[in-house]
Amino acid sequence: MNKLYVVGIGPGDRENMTDRAFDAMEEAEVLCGYDSYIDLVTPIFPLKERIATGMTREVERCREALATAAAGRTVAVVCSGDAGVYGMAGLLYELSAGYPPVEIEVVPGISAAMAGAAVLGAPLMHDFAVVSLSDLLTPWDTIAIRLEHAAAADFVLCLYNPSSRKRRDHLARACDIVLRHRTPATICGWVRNIGRDGQESDVLTLGELRDFEADMFTTVFIGSSATRAIDGRMVTPRGYGEAGQ
Amino acid sequence: MNKLYVVGIGPGDRENMTDRAFDAMEEAEVLCGYDSYIDLVTPIFPLKERIATGMTREVERCREALATAAAGRTVAVVCSGDAGVYGMAGLLYELSAGYPPVEIEVVPGISAAMAGAAVLGAPLMHDFAVVSLSDLLTPWDTIAIRLEHAAAADFVLCLYNPSSRKRRDHLARACDIVLRHRTPATICGWVRNIGRDGQESDVLTLGELRDFEADMFTTVFIGSSATRAIDGRMVTPRGYGEAGQ
Repeated sequence: MNKLYVVGIGPGDRENMTDRAFDAMEEAEVLCGYDSYIDLVTPIFPLKERIATGMTREVERCREALATAAAGRTVAVVCSGDAGVYGMAGLLYELSAGYPPVEIEVVPGISAAMAGAAVLGAPLMHDFAVVSLSDLLTPWDTIAIRLEHAAAADFVLCLYNPSSRKRRDHLARACDIVLRHRTPATICGWVRNIGRDGQESDVLTLGELRDFEADMFTTVFIGSSATRAIDGRMVTPRGYGEAGQ
Repeated sequence: MNKLYVVGIGPGDRENMTDRAFDAMEEAEVLCGYDSYIDLVTPIFPLKERIATGMTREVERCREALATAAAGRTVAVVCSGDAGVYGMAGLLYELSAGYPPVEIEVVPGISAAMAGAAVLGAPLMHDFAVVSLSDLLTPWDTIAIRLEHAAAADFVLCLYNPSSRKRRDHLARACDIVLRHRTPATICGWVRNIGRDGQESDVLTLGELRDFEADMFTTVFIGSSATRAIDGRMVTPRGYGEAGQ
């Protein structure tokens, strides 16, 4: 059957990619994806045919990938991080009914939540919630309700898309919601350009995070009430009784 | 400085491991971890010195890893999935103060949430919460409150440790909490032995999941109100207007 891989490449370098992701792209005749992600893998597969499309053209991109696979060519749709976390896997399944049978295989990758957590220390050691602050596809009210509940239940929060040119204040608004349930001293962290040139990160308080200017390449972590700063790292204890004694 | 890697190996096979994880273990003189995880990497590194300890001996295991690294040997603590999601990274940071300086580097891996989601389709395409149902280190009341809030906020839920010999009914109790906010027809899924021999999975309803007997090698996914079954796959739409038209 015609084959379409949806590949999570992780942060983008070969080191943080699985062999399975590499092999899927190598097997593919055509690589398809958002142009910035295609740029990340072009040095690895310089001779591979590419279909690169701009941001917010997800539906068009997925239709083109499905049409190419349905025509008998093996396609790999390239996603940054994990293919199934705010990636293209879901949309490809949704659209696939309109095309002749294509076998879709999702190849997982290191998502920004895990890659960013590893840079900061160990913030996700206990129950956590992942929320995108982008209101392009989700009403802000829904986002706000999720933040409210996650904060009330003392989840560690990992925030994707904390900012963009059109919505600079989303992170501050998110912090204000969490601040109804946690103190300004709550330990937080952010990582920018995870695993790429110019990677930066910081561990800071929720009060400080409120005034931090994130960009669209930043992933933000808000600690639970148990999260601590240990030697400059953001660490959420899992609750081992003996630890630290 | 003395070096200690905390390595997420993903499901356990070489294919789903990053090169960075492989390289860290190759560089290490000693591999340390829960014996089942050490067994997974022994075929890859048959000649490497190993310190394998039983379940629930996390503190002892981390102390031994830190002492070995502090004595000047490079150590890799091996974790299944991601090193920072219910793994050993946090505990190692917590305990590290008691040892001569050791540089801890967390190497992320494919967690069961991402690997399991890829098997089922694309359940984590939108905001999700990860909750462990193990009450060994967390009171059940805390777990119940988190489930309640996550369900109320319409998060997709990914459940780790849904069952064990001592707590067979935790998954049913979790489903009952979610059923206060979602219909029994809500699309769910489970994956057992992800990426390993004997991998099994199913897409089913929340009503059916309530009566499902999970074991400790199972990861469970409960859909949001938007999650759908598409051609036997569990898919949470992200909300692209055109999709499916």
